[in-house]
Amino acid sequence: MYRLPIFVGQWKELGRVCELVKIARREEAFHKTLKNLSIIDHFGFDENLTFQQRYLVADQHWKKDNGPILFYTGNEGDITWFCNNTGFMWDVAEELNAMLVFAEHRYYGESLPFGNESFSDSKHLNYLTSEQALADFAVLIEYLKTTIAGARYSPVIAIGGSYGGMLAAWFRMKYPHVVVGALAASAPIWQFGDLVPCGTYFSIVTNDFKKSGTGCSESIRNSWNAINHLSSTDAGLQWLSSTFHLCSPLKNLQDAAILKNWLSETWVNLAMVNYPYKADFLQPLPAWPIQEVCKFLKDPSLSDKLLLQNVFQAVNLYYNYSGEASCLDMSETATKNLGQLGWYYQACTEMVMPMCTDGVNDMFEPQKWDFDALSEECYKLWGVRPRPSWILSMYGGKNISSHSNIVFSNGGLDPWSAGGVTQNITDSLVAIVIPDGAHHLDLRSRNPLDPKSVQQARALEIHYMKQWIEKARCNH
Amino acid sequence: MYRLPIFVGQWKELGRVCELVKIARREEAFHKTLKNLSIIDHFGFDENLTFQQRYLVADQHWKKDNGPILFYTGNEGDITWFCNNTGFMWDVAEELNAMLVFAEHRYYGESLPFGNESFSDSKHLNYLTSEQALADFAVLIEYLKTTIAGARYSPVIAIGGSYGGMLAAWFRMKYPHVVVGALAASAPIWQFGDLVPCGTYFSIVTNDFKKSGTGCSESIRNSWNAINHLSSTDAGLQWLSSTFHLCSPLKNLQDAAILKNWLSETWVNLAMVNYPYKADFLQPLPAWPIQEVCKFLKDPSLSDKLLLQNVFQAVNLYYNYSGEASCLDMSETATKNLGQLGWYYQACTEMVMPMCTDGVNDMFEPQKWDFDALSEECYKLWGVRPRPSWILSMYGGKNISSHSNIVFSNGGLDPWSAGGVTQNITDSLVAIVIPDGAHHLDLRSRNPLDPKSVQQARALEIHYMKQWIEKARCNH
Repeated sequence: MYRLPIFVGQWKELGRVCELVKIARREEAFHKTLKNLSIIDHFGFDENLTFQQRYLVADQHWKKDNGPILFYTGNEGDITWFCNNTGFMWDVAEELNAMLVFAEHRYYGESLPFGNESFSDSKHLNYLTSEQALADFAVLIEYLKTTIAGARYSPVIAIGGSYGGMLAAWFRMKYPHVVVGALAASAPIWQFGDLVPCGTYFSIVTNDFKKSGTGCSESIRNSWNAINHLSSTDAGLQWLSSTFHLCSPLKNLQDAAILKNWLSETWVNLAMVNYPYKADFLQPLPAWPIQEVCKFLKDPSLSDKLLLQNVFQAVNLYYNYSGEASCLDMSETATKNLGQLGWYYQACTEMVMPMCTDGVNDMFEPQKWDFDALSEECYKLWGVRPRPSWILSMYGGKNISSHSNIVFSNGGLDPWSAGGVTQNITDSLVAIVIPDGAHHLDLRSRNPLDPKSVQQARALEIHYMKQWIEKARCNH
Repeated sequence: MYRLPIFVGQWKELGRVCELVKIARREEAFHKTLKNLSIIDHFGFDENLTFQQRYLVADQHWKKDNGPILFYTGNEGDITWFCNNTGFMWDVAEELNAMLVFAEHRYYGESLPFGNESFSDSKHLNYLTSEQALADFAVLIEYLKTTIAGARYSPVIAIGGSYGGMLAAWFRMKYPHVVVGALAASAPIWQFGDLVPCGTYFSIVTNDFKKSGTGCSESIRNSWNAINHLSSTDAGLQWLSSTFHLCSPLKNLQDAAILKNWLSETWVNLAMVNYPYKADFLQPLPAWPIQEVCKFLKDPSLSDKLLLQNVFQAVNLYYNYSGEASCLDMSETATKNLGQLGWYYQACTEMVMPMCTDGVNDMFEPQKWDFDALSEECYKLWGVRPRPSWILSMYGGKNISSHSNIVFSNGGLDPWSAGGVTQNITDSLVAIVIPDGAHHLDLRSRNPLDPKSVQQARALEIHYMKQWIEKARCNH
């Protein structure tokens, strides 16, 4: 078994909620939605078709005389969601006199190279790679610079979070002639090969729970055996189904494994969105949601059933804070929305991020990293084999010191910081660590409850962006 | 009409001669010929086949404790020819304690991704791009470093000439984690888009002839009209066929156009190989062959027939210095050897290098750059359309100052210097101009007749290579 190392769970949730709230967002009123013709295969000439790539532009604060452009390198989801949830860019647009551009990643949102056929087989999926996405961005920026009056010499800064943060960093590495610098927020560019231990990711999740309440991580650690005990009998399976209010009852051990995976993903998601304020962009979660969850998980020594009833309370807070859900749907983690399909394919090709647990340094069931199982599953599903070393060959792994002008920011609470750059590499490859930050907290809008560390991080990020812009002006 | 902007003519000749002389070369005895499995499509996962990439290794001077590796980025031809004609690398191997590696470019020599089918259609040709070639090189170097004992931390320097020089420069730009620096000899990385005037190339050819003898370039300039006059009658066509000792007689105006193209290519080739010493690697040519050719072309005011008889003497020196050819074969310039086929495809896809003549600043018939005609011809021949701006998007055009550790060398006599980097860009993007040098003279073996300028150029190149190696050691 392998663990699909994904942002998927997160985006799925965020994407859904985005639909609900986006009308209320101030930004929505201000951006223009546009499409650009992009070549489907930048790296070969046999396939000469083009597709419509969506991008959003907000230029109300832009200084038309070659003012800077902040370019969001879209990742695995609908670009309107990223547009609405990257408040940092909106917050700094005025100060920098910047135009904002949010470019959708091919195969996500409305930017589907082959329309409804895009995911039909490995032939149609063949152009879903980070390299093609970066080429789209480069070509789009050149198009904007030649078609928007006054943008010819605008310095462009790439900004992205998570996989989008990796893209921002890689974009600067591979196309330094297109972007003068990059802000790569919560970008686990080293979560590949053997660059970092495969277990750190889950040990960070565990620490988040350990710090948030006595007995919390131990309760979760003990819950797996409790589920194992109960799922060995039909009565136990029935009890689990009803206790967890599952929409579809568990029928066998395989279903019980799905339950455990679903719970694991829930803990991981909580670690990613463990923000310091009430977050109304997700299904409403309280501030510091892990602390709230941990209030249900104080006693790890309870009997199996009592322990699992508490676990239910905990996950119910995440999935059903509003109290409106009549049952919990485990299949949500496998919902076939495009974003998930696309990322699954990417995880089966380039984005091979080894993950493992040992149950000692983390609160999860021990699970080794099993590349062969991943490879088999990918072949069965997509007819492709992952190439685990390709990203290292392409983007350099840890050997990236010859590049420049990249800020890597990471949250200390964010499991993805395990694969992030958390120490300065050179004067211009800078690491910013936000001890109290979860997954790219710094990219979110300013909030009165922001901890000082994220305020400082943002100030430093703006400092570097100004520096890049200034230097670009001098060079021009 | 377009002019196919090619190295083809050159390689064709050089390739053929290489076969004749390679046994006599000292290097031949010392290198090992090896093959490495490389992935056919680095940028997509639908095609998962591999092919055998040939590479040559010479390690007799290599210091096994992480001594440097000089890596020849193979270009559009058989790698054994490049191995035998890049004497500079052999000359410096001992001084640098370096291993030499010559990697063959996919689709050339024996490195054919689909064997005999490689050129059968645009589907099979789809993987013939510079990006795929660079990825081959990156993966090969990683393979060598992990499999050759003592090479794990060997600093690698990319070296190449002509298109191979472009590859060396681009390799350092795109894979700075793989190579610590690059020597890009006679690499016209700016012969794209509108980065340089399209006419400079042919005006350099013209200057070479102008400087090499009174009346020389004027004679050639006048020859075109002479041919035009004569080819308007059957008797004239017959006279031309017999005067130029053509193997296949000219039948119509179209054939006369072929004659003119063939002559143009001959002058261009002479400009490229206008070396200061007798070159026994080509069909034996004397030192400074343009001077020899110009001895036949002193009087541009002669009658059409007398002028063209002299032109024949001139080209006969190039094609038949040995006196053994019974006739001259114009179809040579279109010989379907693999190298030419491959380069033709590349010129029809990525390698779109605008060229033009005006008959005023050059000695050729005026011919505008006609992209549409190129595009039509490419579509007819290969079913592909060239993308003239892609190379600029990919490799940055003139906006490359953020890169480092590349030496661009160019010969003042070399027409390809028109598109080369001939002025320093930064402290570590350095231009070396060799006023008396033709096409990558500096990459050739030391020769007693070498002008001082090429000796100095080589010394400077070695200086930079040592610097890169030294710095890599410190970083390690």
